[in-house]
Amino acid sequence: MLILFRADASSTDEARAVALIEELGLAAQPIPGLRRRAVVVVGNDGRADPARFATLPGVEEIVPLSKPYRMVARDWRPEPTIVSLPNGLSVGGPDLFIVAGPCSIETYQQISATAAAVRAAGATAIRAGAFKPRTSPYAFQGLGRAGLELLEVVRKETGLLVVTEAMDDETFDEVAAVADVVQIGARNMQNFSLLKRAGRSTKPVLLKRGPAASIVDWLMSAEYVLAEGNPNVILCERGIRGGDSSTRNIFDLNAVAAVKQLSHLPVMADPSHGTGRRALVRPMARAAVAAGADGLLVEVHVQPDQALSDGAQSLYPEQFALMMEEIRGIAAVIGRGLPKSVAGSG
Amino acid sequence: MLILFRADASSTDEARAVALIEELGLAAQPIPGLRRRAVVVVGNDGRADPARFATLPGVEEIVPLSKPYRMVARDWRPEPTIVSLPNGLSVGGPDLFIVAGPCSIETYQQISATAAAVRAAGATAIRAGAFKPRTSPYAFQGLGRAGLELLEVVRKETGLLVVTEAMDDETFDEVAAVADVVQIGARNMQNFSLLKRAGRSTKPVLLKRGPAASIVDWLMSAEYVLAEGNPNVILCERGIRGGDSSTRNIFDLNAVAAVKQLSHLPVMADPSHGTGRRALVRPMARAAVAAGADGLLVEVHVQPDQALSDGAQSLYPEQFALMMEEIRGIAAVIGRGLPKSVAGSG
Amino acid sequence: MLILFRADASSTDEARAVALIEELGLAAQPIPGLRRRAVVVVGNDGRADPARFATLPGVEEIVPLSKPYRMVARDWRPEPTIVSLPNGLSVGGPDLFIVAGPCSIETYQQISATAAAVRAAGATAIRAGAFKPRTSPYAFQGLGRAGLELLEVVRKETGLLVVTEAMDDETFDEVAAVADVVQIGARNMQNFSLLKRAGRSTKPVLLKRGPAASIVDWLMSAEYVLAEGNPNVILCERGIRGGDSSTRNIFDLNAVAAVKQLSHLPVMADPSHGTGRRALVRPMARAAVAAGADGLLVEVHVQPDQALSDGAQSLYPEQFALMMEEIRGIAAVIGRGLPKSVAGSG
Amino acid sequence: MLILFRADASSTDEARAVALIEELGLAAQPIPGLRRRAVVVVGNDGRADPARFATLPGVEEIVPLSKPYRMVARDWRPEPTIVSLPNGLSVGGPDLFIVAGPCSIETYQQISATAAAVRAAGATAIRAGAFKPRTSPYAFQGLGRAGLELLEVVRKETGLLVVTEAMDDETFDEVAAVADVVQIGARNMQNFSLLKRAGRSTKPVLLKRGPAASIVDWLMSAEYVLAEGNPNVILCERGIRGGDSSTRNIFDLNAVAAVKQLSHLPVMADPSHGTGRRALVRPMARAAVAAGADGLLVEVHVQPDQALSDGAQSLYPEQFALMMEEIRGIAAVIGRGLPKSVAGSG
Repeated sequence: MLILFRADASSTDEARAVALIEELGLAAQPIPGLRRRAVVVVGNDGRADPARFATLPGVEEIVPLSKPYRMVARDWRPEPTIVSLPNGLSVGGPDLFIVAGPCSIETYQQISATAAAVRAAGATAIRAGAFKPRTSPYAFQGLGRAGLELLEVVRKETGLLVVTEAMDDETFDEVAAVADVVQIGARNMQNFSLLKRAGRSTKPVLLKRGPAASIVDWLMSAEYVLAEGNPNVILCERGIRGGDSSTRNIFDLNAVAAVKQLSHLPVMADPSHGTGRRALVRPMARAAVAAGADGLLVEVHVQPDQALSDGAQSLYPEQFALMMEEIRGIAAVIGRGLPKSVAGSG
Repeated sequence: MLILFRADASSTDEARAVALIEELGLAAQPIPGLRRRAVVVVGNDGRADPARFATLPGVEEIVPLSKPYRMVARDWRPEPTIVSLPNGLSVGGPDLFIVAGPCSIETYQQISATAAAVRAAGATAIRAGAFKPRTSPYAFQGLGRAGLELLEVVRKETGLLVVTEAMDDETFDEVAAVADVVQIGARNMQNFSLLKRAGRSTKPVLLKRGPAASIVDWLMSAEYVLAEGNPNVILCERGIRGGDSSTRNIFDLNAVAAVKQLSHLPVMADPSHGTGRRALVRPMARAAVAAGADGLLVEVHVQPDQALSDGAQSLYPEQFALMMEEIRGIAAVIGRGLPKSVAGSG
Repeated sequence: MLILFRADASSTDEARAVALIEELGLAAQPIPGLRRRAVVVVGNDGRADPARFATLPGVEEIVPLSKPYRMVARDWRPEPTIVSLPNGLSVGGPDLFIVAGPCSIETYQQISATAAAVRAAGATAIRAGAFKPRTSPYAFQGLGRAGLELLEVVRKETGLLVVTEAMDDETFDEVAAVADVVQIGARNMQNFSLLKRAGRSTKPVLLKRGPAASIVDWLMSAEYVLAEGNPNVILCERGIRGGDSSTRNIFDLNAVAAVKQLSHLPVMADPSHGTGRRALVRPMARAAVAAGADGLLVEVHVQPDQALSDGAQSLYPEQFALMMEEIRGIAAVIGRGLPKSVAGSG
Repeated sequence: MLILFRADASSTDEARAVALIEELGLAAQPIPGLRRRAVVVVGNDGRADPARFATLPGVEEIVPLSKPYRMVARDWRPEPTIVSLPNGLSVGGPDLFIVAGPCSIETYQQISATAAAVRAAGATAIRAGAFKPRTSPYAFQGLGRAGLELLEVVRKETGLLVVTEAMDDETFDEVAAVADVVQIGARNMQNFSLLKRAGRSTKPVLLKRGPAASIVDWLMSAEYVLAEGNPNVILCERGIRGGDSSTRNIFDLNAVAAVKQLSHLPVMADPSHGTGRRALVRPMARAAVAAGADGLLVEVHVQPDQALSDGAQSLYPEQFALMMEEIRGIAAVIGRGLPKSVAGSG
């Protein structure tokens, strides 16, 4: 932590800061030769809270010299985390993890037909919401438990893994009992009660980035899960809010590439929410893989025009199949691939 | 709802949309004379979901012709909502509701001294967190129940109302048992499980705007609470995320003025989080009142440099007293004031 | 400048950076006791370019320890700059500088009637564009020279000062010959050729903030003008781009309060562009003055529904008169006022 | 254009709007059956300015039913524009246009060596600035004319095309005399005087997206160039400003995919400015091609740590060569390629 003083700060101001540092049992090292006074706090293990110093007279700014996250950092663990999943699958290794399906579970026919279609095209997991966070209280809120039961049926039918969202503490256990990966949605990225609950589970957690979250905020939310004891976190970029109505969101693929360097955790990307428009999903799915994403979360629906939610961004199964072919080609260029058994079934 | 087609859409494309509208039991009215085809859906009561039409061939865009929110709208209720509080106080009428106190409850001495100071300066309620949502799992997370107990003590000592945050379903009842107004924090603005829980209570709810929430999203979250049966919602602007490190947030006072026109609900403002820097709190508190805010939420701490959270944006009691004097003057210019009994005690 | 290394950087990496610092004739001071290597560049007068160090092996980040701007900073000049204007007026002192008028000059009748109306209500200057930057090539681009001539006529009629925009080098002299204050518009905030041209003039320059400019970028653009020799810069906040269609822009009053602390230059605010909606102009004009703005730029039109540009945000003269009354009250609360002679004529 | 009234608007309000429409010689068509009054303006050829209607009593909102841009739209010209360049090259067809080189021209040695290196790796044009727009007046502003002369020398040496920036009217002709493609930089995207100047030229123009520009604003700026008579516009995404310091900008590849659908113009991408960090350039260059970009603009420098500007985002020649290999592979997956003669020389 570096304390920068205002140009007109006095030696008394500096002495006050140094006294506080030493009171906390830490060492203060002034930096000479600058245009203004500056003091480094040496050996800070968290005892020195930046806010305490920011409020001292004469202090202009506190510059952090270490990152606020620990366990999620590459510094903490240099080799990449590979999250193991059932069926011999994993996320974070050379093989891409492709999760596809409808936004919401609606009927047995819908989910079963979609599951069969995405499996045929090479997906290894199905995504579909039983509990749905919706901006409007009047919008379809999901089938709830009945939806979870349909997911179990479909898993047996197809062998696909199941990725589905938990919205609160109350339903976390129910969801985790069915899901192979529990999703925490973008709007709950800083629902710290839910993050702690997920951290006390051992189920892999897919943590979506909040629509306004900085990369650091996102990593801090992952840190909550790891700090509670669950190391199986998969990050997922899904678009951030921007000022342009031509696309629903800004799909921040820079974040995918940046997080691969800052953290050892796997990072997936969701081009469906990331773009909000069906016609952009395929090019941006390709782009996500080219940028280094460890997998994709894609909305596919057998009848998008009948979908109870997010139909406008859902692919038709044949579009998804085309997308998978292109993905396979791009993965090969950068030394990655699709899981063999599944690729074989495509 | 207005369906706009692409310039190259065919009469078949238009006929398909009309057929779907009629299938839903609604009327379709094509608009002639434009450069491209356009059809209005007449009498839509929610049956026609925009997403279903957005996915039809030839359709370029769906333009909503009604607002997504209902009960929170001025159209629904033209006169302003005045939320009644204990002690004969209220929010949304001519008197401003001034809530001040530390970010977190730390000790009896801290909260008691701060409460006495803000009361002396004219505040009518104390704000202080017992359960604290923190970006970092390693930051102080609040005293929890012990904090709630201290709030009860302080209320007895000072007569101040209590505003404090509920973070989840699990602790909502505990918080509501103590609070006169239950706060839902910015990061939980779209925690729909918590919103529904608050909607089943009768306690007034202070709903902070999320750091990336559009005004419509914010009103939709208020709609969740009203739709469940609780009409006592107070909105609170607290700054949105922007691209500038010179201030922690962008304090969006346009939103205060805009919401006063779109909705009948009272709107407060939090210049402490809205600016993130102590030196900006006083001018922006004045600006918020001048813009028409129905009240203020301000961080005050007897020893900001000892605060366990957000010290850098907390006012010293004497700064708060100066702020109150200025607020009083500005309120008078626009025909508003501070509660009489409290103003008298200042 | 502080060089922060990656956690896995070697002593060779550090030595390489130190060698480069010394090669530039500067001193390197390593900081011990941190979790990672860090070196301060002492005595940097600009010779050490951050980019050169950012690219060295093992370097993670360069932290600037001084501000990039100089002459605009409070550190450079502690007392506020008061820009002197004709008629004994000025900006940056206790009196507010109120500039009002239509977006564009359209006809003699329009500009003359509007000028008379805003003068009667207490404005001290007229604003109106002869050269108009418009997003669309098909929109009205201004009357050009003919417009400047009308401004001269109106100045004689009313005694109001003239504020009008220069869009390029080519027309700068023509505009400066008529204007008492030359405006540089938001979209030209980083038109460095134009900034340099304005810096070689002695006319006061009103520099609007770009729609995405950080506060630092804005100050750097002002620095261009000062560095060329013109100290008479007036900053003007006019709203930044945000993600919400409920208001055209986000009116960033935090920036007004923050710039008053960072810089000695006067700062005005434009609530018309800042909000984009007539109904929000009056509350936000009040808020701007309450936040500490040194003046206002407000769009007023005698017939807003006939305006060739920006009619939707223009006030009617009677609304402007009401606004002026409120402004006068709020100014008094914070120890400011309107120019006496003009206030007398109101 | 659709006029939406407030819920409490009267029949008089509606009649007033209809009268104004008819006064303009256009037809008004009211839409029955909605919750509020709505009137469509039929046959509007631009005579009805939205702002005039937005200000009428009772009007809440004006919904545009046509796009503000014309000549740049796919509707106007369904087939893609292929901009022809010297040497039998072009942009917008199946072959990618790869432009690489240093941010600024510094010395003959630097530009000559970099040109040779990027040509060997397969680039078909060199990029390098002679006139440099810099945020700081104290930063290196480019070699000016001497830089242009060096570009001519290098073109003769290597056969590479030259892409370089014009900053103002004054130097446009000088730049255009040397450049094969004249760049208009991001900060000048709404410098309308410069856009008009470029429109009166026949030189191909590379128009970078402004750091806060919406897609529509960007297309409108291209419209300025086309409207003046120059059809040879190449768009270039280069990152927009976001709230995250982990990456310098947000590289908005959604915009590339979206613009390919909205417009017939070619769209390139600049992953160097789009990311601001060398380590992200290669993955994001791959992503841009995968998303459908028609070419790349990449900063390469033989000695990035000696660069006078933007060194931190410049690739070493060997990194660029690796990037080109990957690009070639990804292009093949989506049916595109590199120019044959050049690919052969790689």
